Amino acid sequence: MSERLPAKKQLEKQPETAVVLLSGGLDSSTALAWAIKEKAWHCYTLAFDYGQRHRIELAASQRIAAALGVQEHRVLRVDLASIGGSALTSDIDVPKDHQKTGSIPVTYVPARNLIFLSMAAAFAEARGASHLVIGANIVDYSGYPDCRSEFFAAFAQTLKLATRAGAEGSDTHIETPLINLKKSEIIALGLKLGLDYSLTHSCYDPTSDGRPCGHCDSCLYRRSGFNALGLSDPLPYPD
Amino acid sequence: MSERLPAKKQLEKQPETAVVLLSGGLDSSTALAWAIKEKAWHCYTLAFDYGQRHRIELAASQRIAAALGVQEHRVLRVDLASIGGSALTSDIDVPKDHQKTGSIPVTYVPARNLIFLSMAAAFAEARGASHLVIGANIVDYSGYPDCRSEFFAAFAQTLKLATRAGAEGSDTHIETPLINLKKSEIIALGLKLGLDYSLTHSCYDPTSDGRPCGHCDSCLYRRSGFNALGLSDPLPYPD
Repeated sequence: MSERLPAKKQLEKQPETAVVLLSGGLDSSTALAWAIKEKAWHCYTLAFDYGQRHRIELAASQRIAAALGVQEHRVLRVDLASIGGSALTSDIDVPKDHQKTGSIPVTYVPARNLIFLSMAAAFAEARGASHLVIGANIVDYSGYPDCRSEFFAAFAQTLKLATRAGAEGSDTHIETPLINLKKSEIIALGLKLGLDYSLTHSCYDPTSDGRPCGHCDSCLYRRSGFNALGLSDPLPYPD
Repeated sequence: MSERLPAKKQLEKQPETAVVLLSGGLDSSTALAWAIKEKAWHCYTLAFDYGQRHRIELAASQRIAAALGVQEHRVLRVDLASIGGSALTSDIDVPKDHQKTGSIPVTYVPARNLIFLSMAAAFAEARGASHLVIGANIVDYSGYPDCRSEFFAAFAQTLKLATRAGAEGSDTHIETPLINLKKSEIIALGLKLGLDYSLTHSCYDPTSDGRPCGHCDSCLYRRSGFNALGLSDPLPYPD
């Protein structure tokens, strides 16, 4: 039997490869845990240094990538701050305690997911990855146009026409495992997969010592997700 | 009559605004001349510092933007070199004298037009521009998947779903004025519009003193375009 092992091994399917957008927040970290632990994909992770005021999230993305054991973690620079138009990249105030500022939040960054997915597609093409994973979800955080399923479906169609891989017939699948989950369901999924949420960072407007503010939309949705499960968010909120 | 002039002026249509991708090459410079002189749009221009070996084109883009009188010219940094996968951003040799290297040239940069258009869309959204202009053409330079009309049509659909502007019902039109023109027709259009092609730069692999090599695909298509019109390319080729 033993002499057959090498031949048998050759027949084993190569693991599929994915590029995962990893901001270091709760959602993207859960999406990465899903890709690695539920799908058993070999994962490359990308974070973006785009001039965001919560640049501290880049350190969280590195912690998560290391903790979950990715193939390679890369921080790509892309200058969205000089383009402007968002509270996350300019001196517009980040709204607190669900203060309304119009139908689409001022924390919307023009075309951000389109740009990030496009760069992830380039990275996937250069490495032969067949999946792009993004932790977008619409249930507890509606308002961003580029978090809708219709957007991801349209992007997948465009991608077939945009790249060498697409032109040569190999599809890159856009994976949105969290798209229809409530925040509490996302957290329950991550906990089931063993994810340590104390490593993540979600706040848009952290304090000078790096703690989450507790009052921006991102903090509020996150905390209420833990509350709905009867749990406390492990992050050190000031209040 | 004179007292009515201010009121009349208010009724005049505001000029439309465009964001033009301006590499400083022959095609993008002609597309800019078209947008300014034929369409009378107020134009913002974008060049990208993406780790290209022909970084000298950035100086050409600035010369052209200044010569044609744009509203604002911006060079955005985006790190495609670290993604790799192209002769233009890595140490793969640039093919010379139409040397074949496969169906899609090795000078293809993964997802480049998708990334550049996505960033231009963000810039357009932040400035309320309703047109994105790209000097892509397929006749004399086929092979790049992201220069096809189908790609631009799909991108326009995706854009409607990707941005605040799209979600709120204002379309951003993708303008490809050169898409079906031969290189000689592009040059004839530019000359008719008064464009000075000595300001442009097209070479993928310039000499150390900044002159075009004369033998890469980009140089060859350009020179044959001038030849077809019975003209000489004004650039200082070594041979």
